Amino acid sequence: MRLRNVKNAQEKLRASAYFIEDPLKWRGKWHQVFNANKPLHLEIGTGKGQFLIAMAKENPDILFIGVEKYESVLVRAIEKVELENLPNIRFICGDAFKLNAIFAHEITTIYLNFSDPWPKSRHAKRRLTSPSVLAVYEELFISTKTIIQKTDNPDFFTYSIESLSQYGYVLEQVSLHLENSNIKNVETEYEQKFKNLGYPIYYLKAVKK
Amino acid sequence: MRLRNVKNAQEKLRASAYFIEDPLKWRGKWHQVFNANKPLHLEIGTGKGQFLIAMAKENPDILFIGVEKYESVLVRAIEKVELENLPNIRFICGDAFKLNAIFAHEITTIYLNFSDPWPKSRHAKRRLTSPSVLAVYEELFISTKTIIQKTDNPDFFTYSIESLSQYGYVLEQVSLHLENSNIKNVETEYEQKFKNLGYPIYYLKAVKK
Repeated sequence: MRLRNVKNAQEKLRASAYFIEDPLKWRGKWHQVFNANKPLHLEIGTGKGQFLIAMAKENPDILFIGVEKYESVLVRAIEKVELENLPNIRFICGDAFKLNAIFAHEITTIYLNFSDPWPKSRHAKRRLTSPSVLAVYEELFISTKTIIQKTDNPDFFTYSIESLSQYGYVLEQVSLHLENSNIKNVETEYEQKFKNLGYPIYYLKAVKK
Repeated sequence: MRLRNVKNAQEKLRASAYFIEDPLKWRGKWHQVFNANKPLHLEIGTGKGQFLIAMAKENPDILFIGVEKYESVLVRAIEKVELENLPNIRFICGDAFKLNAIFAHEITTIYLNFSDPWPKSRHAKRRLTSPSVLAVYEELFISTKTIIQKTDNPDFFTYSIESLSQYGYVLEQVSLHLENSNIKNVETEYEQKFKNLGYPIYYLKAVKK
């Protein structure tokens, strides 16, 4: 994503109750942040938040946390969520590879929406479904582990199928054309643009017990 | 496949040393047919035999058996293989769902090339990657089980990924565009026609231990 410099991004984030400034201190205690004992779902690379805010509206019995690397992007999500009154969503700044410092066996579902495909082989380790990242996710998950991925990149998609399957995940649902399927779908900003160009969206749901 | 009536198909089959007329009697003893102790690979729905004959030429250290339901189709494979001198290939007539009457724990690899996708949900059981057929394959395989599938049908392809994964297979290799991949490939008759129309060929290699 091209990053625009957002003035006072940090200040805007800190001013919002939807933004958790120091996520490290909530490790293993995220249910306390919400004061609710409901399943915790995590979106890694939440971008401008459209997907996760819509999910939070539709699913009041699920708690949602969006992680975004860039403050200048996350501030857009915060601006958007501030227009709502949603008790079940929070946003944090963080790096996917270090999420085990922020969560400890408390997540049930991870969403990976249009993550960077890192197309070059020598960058394969950086893909958010590489074995080394799946090892990080092991420390976040509690009981049954669910990963739901959407991408427009066919090579990243097949890489994910192979990597998840080889890591012990079972592919519960796979689609090569999400919009033609009967899978319930909340669209991301990127997805809408991409779909309007007529390209297929690839989808998978993988589960590990 | 549209079937043309082939005169004297049965006679032609019986006249060929490449055709095994009574496969039931070789159950558990197929290595004796070849008089060679090499891995046994099976193509289910071998059609006119182009794929398997090319595979047999390229891989002298593997034994190949092609199964085809229709004698009128198989006779074309026999006509083709009779022009060769290949010790490592045989053909039989049979039904995929009853292969456990013909083989007993002696196959290492099964090829499914452009099998009927049976697109209607109520026919899903007839697909050659449905759980009930995978249960038949369990009785054919020895040690590590490998299934290699090619299809032009995206829904059949995603069905296969889900079904194989849920049955305990690991997806070792997946491609949404076989001809653009670096996967070694021997083409079938159907594949050549289809590829020339510009459509993608889907490929998977699944392994179960």
